[in-house]
Amino acid sequence: MRHPMRLDFTSDNITGACPEILAALARANEGAVGSYGSDPYTTALERLAEAIFEHPVTILPVATGTAANALALSALAGPFEAIYCQAAAHVITDECGAPEFYTAGAKLIGLPSRDGRLQPEQIAEAVAFARSMGIHHVRPAVACVSQATEWGTIYAPDALAALAAQAHGLGLKVHMDGARFANAVARLGCTPAEASWRAGVDILSLGATKNGALAAEAVVAFDASLAEQLAYRRKRGGHLWSKMRFLSAQLSAYWTDDLWLRNARHSNAMADRLAAGLASIPGARFVQPVEANELFIVLPEAVTARLREKGFRFYDWPSPQGESAAVVRLVTSYDMSASDVDGFLAAASGA
Amino acid sequence: MRHPMRLDFTSDNITGACPEILAALARANEGAVGSYGSDPYTTALERLAEAIFEHPVTILPVATGTAANALALSALAGPFEAIYCQAAAHVITDECGAPEFYTAGAKLIGLPSRDGRLQPEQIAEAVAFARSMGIHHVRPAVACVSQATEWGTIYAPDALAALAAQAHGLGLKVHMDGARFANAVARLGCTPAEASWRAGVDILSLGATKNGALAAEAVVAFDASLAEQLAYRRKRGGHLWSKMRFLSAQLSAYWTDDLWLRNARHSNAMADRLAAGLASIPGARFVQPVEANELFIVLPEAVTARLREKGFRFYDWPSPQGESAAVVRLVTSYDMSASDVDGFLAAASGA
Amino acid sequence: MRHPMRLDFTSDNITGACPEILAALARANEGAVGSYGSDPYTTALERLAEAIFEHPVTILPVATGTAANALALSALAGPFEAIYCQAAAHVITDECGAPEFYTAGAKLIGLPSRDGRLQPEQIAEAVAFARSMGIHHVRPAVACVSQATEWGTIYAPDALAALAAQAHGLGLKVHMDGARFANAVARLGCTPAEASWRAGVDILSLGATKNGALAAEAVVAFDASLAEQLAYRRKRGGHLWSKMRFLSAQLSAYWTDDLWLRNARHSNAMADRLAAGLASIPGARFVQPVEANELFIVLPEAVTARLREKGFRFYDWPSPQGESAAVVRLVTSYDMSASDVDGFLAAASGA
Amino acid sequence: MRHPMRLDFTSDNITGACPEILAALARANEGAVGSYGSDPYTTALERLAEAIFEHPVTILPVATGTAANALALSALAGPFEAIYCQAAAHVITDECGAPEFYTAGAKLIGLPSRDGRLQPEQIAEAVAFARSMGIHHVRPAVACVSQATEWGTIYAPDALAALAAQAHGLGLKVHMDGARFANAVARLGCTPAEASWRAGVDILSLGATKNGALAAEAVVAFDASLAEQLAYRRKRGGHLWSKMRFLSAQLSAYWTDDLWLRNARHSNAMADRLAAGLASIPGARFVQPVEANELFIVLPEAVTARLREKGFRFYDWPSPQGESAAVVRLVTSYDMSASDVDGFLAAASGA
Repeated sequence: MRHPMRLDFTSDNITGACPEILAALARANEGAVGSYGSDPYTTALERLAEAIFEHPVTILPVATGTAANALALSALAGPFEAIYCQAAAHVITDECGAPEFYTAGAKLIGLPSRDGRLQPEQIAEAVAFARSMGIHHVRPAVACVSQATEWGTIYAPDALAALAAQAHGLGLKVHMDGARFANAVARLGCTPAEASWRAGVDILSLGATKNGALAAEAVVAFDASLAEQLAYRRKRGGHLWSKMRFLSAQLSAYWTDDLWLRNARHSNAMADRLAAGLASIPGARFVQPVEANELFIVLPEAVTARLREKGFRFYDWPSPQGESAAVVRLVTSYDMSASDVDGFLAAASGA
Repeated sequence: MRHPMRLDFTSDNITGACPEILAALARANEGAVGSYGSDPYTTALERLAEAIFEHPVTILPVATGTAANALALSALAGPFEAIYCQAAAHVITDECGAPEFYTAGAKLIGLPSRDGRLQPEQIAEAVAFARSMGIHHVRPAVACVSQATEWGTIYAPDALAALAAQAHGLGLKVHMDGARFANAVARLGCTPAEASWRAGVDILSLGATKNGALAAEAVVAFDASLAEQLAYRRKRGGHLWSKMRFLSAQLSAYWTDDLWLRNARHSNAMADRLAAGLASIPGARFVQPVEANELFIVLPEAVTARLREKGFRFYDWPSPQGESAAVVRLVTSYDMSASDVDGFLAAASGA
Repeated sequence: MRHPMRLDFTSDNITGACPEILAALARANEGAVGSYGSDPYTTALERLAEAIFEHPVTILPVATGTAANALALSALAGPFEAIYCQAAAHVITDECGAPEFYTAGAKLIGLPSRDGRLQPEQIAEAVAFARSMGIHHVRPAVACVSQATEWGTIYAPDALAALAAQAHGLGLKVHMDGARFANAVARLGCTPAEASWRAGVDILSLGATKNGALAAEAVVAFDASLAEQLAYRRKRGGHLWSKMRFLSAQLSAYWTDDLWLRNARHSNAMADRLAAGLASIPGARFVQPVEANELFIVLPEAVTARLREKGFRFYDWPSPQGESAAVVRLVTSYDMSASDVDGFLAAASGA
Repeated sequence: MRHPMRLDFTSDNITGACPEILAALARANEGAVGSYGSDPYTTALERLAEAIFEHPVTILPVATGTAANALALSALAGPFEAIYCQAAAHVITDECGAPEFYTAGAKLIGLPSRDGRLQPEQIAEAVAFARSMGIHHVRPAVACVSQATEWGTIYAPDALAALAAQAHGLGLKVHMDGARFANAVARLGCTPAEASWRAGVDILSLGATKNGALAAEAVVAFDASLAEQLAYRRKRGGHLWSKMRFLSAQLSAYWTDDLWLRNARHSNAMADRLAAGLASIPGARFVQPVEANELFIVLPEAVTARLREKGFRFYDWPSPQGESAAVVRLVTSYDMSASDVDGFLAAASGA
C-alpha cells in the first residue's frame, strides 16, 4: 500500500519500523527463552556484531540513543572529569543532561566549530588549559564525536584518526555518538571497522531507530575492560530489558543482508535529490554541505511560507557560528520516496 | 500452534508477547507520526489510563520496571531522604541501586516482615527514629509497597489504606511497585482505582511486560504536580522513546478488552492449580500463601532433584525470616497451559 | 612585628587570618558547648546576620567558598536544570565540578561577556532557547552572578536589580557568589542589603576567608523556605562542623566593628595605589577597570621579566574575549601595606 | 583556670581545642604562604604522617569526619557497588547519606552484630549473596570497619587482620572509620601501623577533632594509586581549604610529642574510672564492654532521673540487638577531669 505523500521533514524519527524489523520481532516471539540476555537471539547478535566490526566487541542493546550515549560516556568519564564535544552536539544540547546524570556530574565542554566537526588542535588547547588548572578544573577524560555530526557532516576516516590520535596522545578516550552511523558509513563507502575502532574509536553509540528499527540502539565497546561495568550500569539505569530478545532481534535484522546500509543509502540519496532540487531555487543557500540525510539551508521567506501553507513541516534552526540568516533543517528518511521529495520540491518552487 | 511443554518455572519474564500486543505494534506502524509522544497512540493511551483509573493521571510509558520504579521514586524522594520498603523488596535488592541512582543517593531502608507486606507501625517506628536523629539521618519521604509483594502476597485495599494513612499522616508519600499489579487486581476482584489512589497510592509503577507485553511498563502519577519533573526525568534517564507510539500502543492494547485481567487471571489460576497439586506431595510445605502467580514452597530434596533431572527449571530462594528450610520459587505465567502445570506435577510426584 | 616585603601578588588567599579573628577563636574555646551549632556562638551569629542584612536570613557557615557555592546552587537547581553564569565564572571553571556534584548533575551554562558581568538580555536569550527545546534541554532555574566578578568588576545595585528582575520574570532564582562581597560593598558604599536581597539576590555565598578569616564562608539564604533542605544538604556534604562555634565565632568577629569593611577598604585602596602606579609605566594597559582588589593588565615583557627576576609572583591570565595580548593578574589583600605596593611599583619601573 | 564541673556527658565533640592545637594555629599564621596545600605546614605534615604510620601515605586533611569517611569511600566504591558495614555504624546511620552522595549512590549494607564489630563470615555471606544475584544486585566493593566501633568496642589487630584477609580474598577493599582511632591505639598499646595497614586497612579516616583539635580530620590512604582521584574529589566536595596551613598545622601538632595519645589515654582512663564507679551501683548493667571512651549501660530509672535533675546530660540509646532495657550512653573526653567523673558518680549514687 502506498503511503500518503510525506509532508513531515522534521526528523527521521517520525518513521515507523521497516518490515524486516517487524518480522524479526514476530519470529523472536516464539516460546520461552532466558531473560535479561540469556537467550539465543542475544548470543547471535553478539557474534554478528563481531563479524560486522571485525573485532571483539561488547555490545549492549538499549532502546534509546540518549541511553546509549550516556552509558558509554559513564564508562569513560568519572564524576570529576571533562568530556569535550562540539558545541552543538546532541549530548550537550539535546539530552536534558543525561550524560551528566550517568557520569554523576562530569562536565561536557562544548568546543565551537562551523561545521560540527572537532579539530585535533581544539582538543589540545582545551586539555592544556585544564592541565594548567590542576585539581581546580575537571580532569580531561573523553573526546566525543558525532558521526554524522549535528550539522549533517561526516568525519572521513583519516580526519577521525587524526582527532583520535590527538586525544589518545593526551590520555583521553574517544566516544562516537553514532546515531546516524549508518548514514556516514553508507556515504563513506568504508567498512564499519574503518569508521570506528580502526580510526581510534574506543566506544560507539550505534543508532538503528532512525534508520528502520522500532526502538534499538547499542553501546558497542571495543575495549573489553569496559564490559563488566557497562553491564552493571545498564541494569542500574533501568535499560536492561527482561525480554532482551526483542532488542537483540531488531539489531540482528538490522545488520542482516545489509538492511542498515540499504536503508541509509536510500535516505542519503533522498537528501541528495532534495538538495539538487533546492539548489536551483533562487536565493537558496546551503549553510552546510549535504553529507548524510540532513540539509541545512537558507530559503527565501516566500518559499518557506508557501511550503508551510501546503502542510509541509520542518524546523527553523539556529544558524551555525557566523551565519545570521534564517536557516531551516530538512531531514530525509529510509522510507521516504522520490515522489515525496519531488512533492516537496514542487511546493517549494511554487509549482 | 501448540508450544512445547513448558519446563521453565523460573519467572514470568521468560515469556514472549501475547498476540494482541504484537498486533497492536503492527497497527501502530502505519505512516509517519510525531515523535517523543506527540502522536495519536500516546494521546489515546493517556485518555484510556484516566478511564481505567477513574482519575486524572500522568502516565509515562517506559520499557522496564526498574526504570518505572526508579523514576517514580525520584519524583518523591530528594537525595537526602529515606524510602522505606520491605527488606526483600525488588527496589532494594534486585535493581542494582537504580533507585539510589535516580534519586541521587536517597537511602532505601528495608524493614523486615515475614510475608513481604509492610505494617503501618513499622513505618511509624522508622520515622520516629529518623526524626529523633534530625539532620544526621536521612529525612523520611516515601513508603514503598510492592503489589504483589516479593513473596507473592497481596495487600488488600483496606490494609493498603491503613498503611498509606499512616505514611501520609507522617508526611510521607506512597509509591507502589506494581510489577504484578494485574495479578493483584485480578485476585482481589477490585477496581484499579481501589487498588491504587483510593487506597492512598500517590504514584504507581505499572507492569505489563511480565503479563503479556513485549516491553512496556508505565509510571502512573495520581498527583498532577509531579507531571513536569517526571517528563524531564524520563528524558534525562534515556527512557523517552523517539518512536513513543510503540510503547503507547502496547499499553493501550494491554488495557483493551480486559486483556491485562484475562492474562493475570489465567496466570493466577495456573498458580492455584500448581499449588493444589503440590499440596498433596508428602513433605511439601508452603512458606507463603499463594495469592498471585508465585509459589514459595519447601519440597523434599528427592522431588526437586527429580524435577531438575527431567529438565524443569526453578530457583532456590532465600527463606523468609525465621525459616531455615530449603525453599524453591515457582512462577506461572499468562501463556502457561494447564497441561504445562500438570506436566510439572506429574514429574514432581514421580509419575 | 613588621612582616617581610610582600612578593606574592597571586591571590588574596595566601594571607593568614587577621588578629581579631584569631582572638575570637581563642575566646570561643572556653568550656563545653553544644555541638553542630547548638551553641551560643552560632545563635549570636544568626542574630548578627539579620542585623547586618536587615532581613530574616538563614545562615550556614562552612569552611570553603566552593562548599558555599555548591550548597547554595543545589538548593535552587534540580538535577535536570540549568544554571546560567558568566563564561569565566569561578563556579564553572575553578571548582572541579562541585556545583554539578552538589546538584546531582545540573548544567552550568557559561555566557560570554567581556567584563565578567552578565547582561539581562543574555539570560533572556538563553531561557528562550531552552524553552524552545522543552524536555530535550535542561530546564532554566538559576542566574548566578559573581560579586566581584572573575574579572574584578562589580555590579552596581541597579545593574544587579535589572538582571535579577529579568531572571525572576522568567521564573529563575538568583544566586550570588560573594567570595569578594566585602570588596564590592566597600567600593560601592552601599549597605549589604542593597547589594543583595534588595537587588533581588535569593541566596548569597558570602566569603570571609580571603578578607581576613582563617577559614569561614557562609551560605546566606533570604528565602526561609530553603532553610531545612540547606541544613540537610550541609550535613550530607560533610560541611557541618561538630565544633561549629569555631566557624560562627570567626564570622561574628568578621562583622563586628566593621572589620570586614575595614579590611576590604584597605585591600581596595592597595589595588588603587597599585593601579595608579602601573598606569604610568609606558606600554601598560588595563584590560579591565579596577573596581575591587584585582588588576588585569598588559605589561611590557621586560617589566614582567624584571619583576619575576626580583622574586615577585603573579599569574599570567587568559585574555578576556577579544584581547590577544599577554595579560597578568595582580591581587592585593587586606594585610598588604602601602610599602608592599610601592616595592612592587619600584621593581616594575626598574627603580 | 579551673573549668566548672562538667555536666555534659553526651559526646566528646562538645569540647574545645586543646592549648597545643591553638598554639599551632597561631604559629601557622605568620606571613604569606602558598594556598591549597602548597605551603610548608602541609609538606611537614605529609612527612610526619609517613613517620607516624611507617609507610608511604597520601594524607588529605579535611574539617569533618563525615567528609573524611565519604571521600575515602568514594575512592573505593563505584556508584553500582556495595559497602558492607556494621548495622549501627556512623556511616550508615549518622551521616545523612554522605557516603551515598560522594559515591554517587553506592549502597551501604548494614550487617548486624551485638558488639559493633563485623565478623569475617558476615562479609563472606553477604558477598556470596551478591554474587549469586549478578548484575541485579550491587557489586561488592568495600568492607568498612569503625575503630572504635559505634558501641565503643575495639578490634584487636589480629581480629582486624582476619576480617581484612577475608575481604581482600573476596576482592574487596577495607576502609576504617577512625573517628576514635586514637582511643583505640591508646588502649591497644600497638603502633598506628599495626592498627591500620599492617592489619590490612587500605584507607583510614583519621579523627582528631573529638580528641583535641579545633576541626581536623584526615583521609589517610596507604595505596598510592588513590592519591590523584582523592585530590580531585576533595576539591570537588568543597573540602580543599585555600588556607590549608590551618588544617595541616592542627594535625602536625596532634601528632607531635604524643599529644594525640596523651589525650586519648586520659579520655580512656576517665571512662575506666566512670565504669568502675558505676559498676557498684545496684541494678547497673553494662551492655557493652568499656574499651574506649564510651559507656553503654543500663541504669535504674531513679539513677538517671536523679542525674538529670542535677543537670547532667547524656543520651538514651537504642539497645543493641537482643537487649530490651533502657540503655544510656556516657562519653568521656580528653579534657574531663577525675573530679568531673567523681561528680557524676556522686550524683549517680545519690551522694
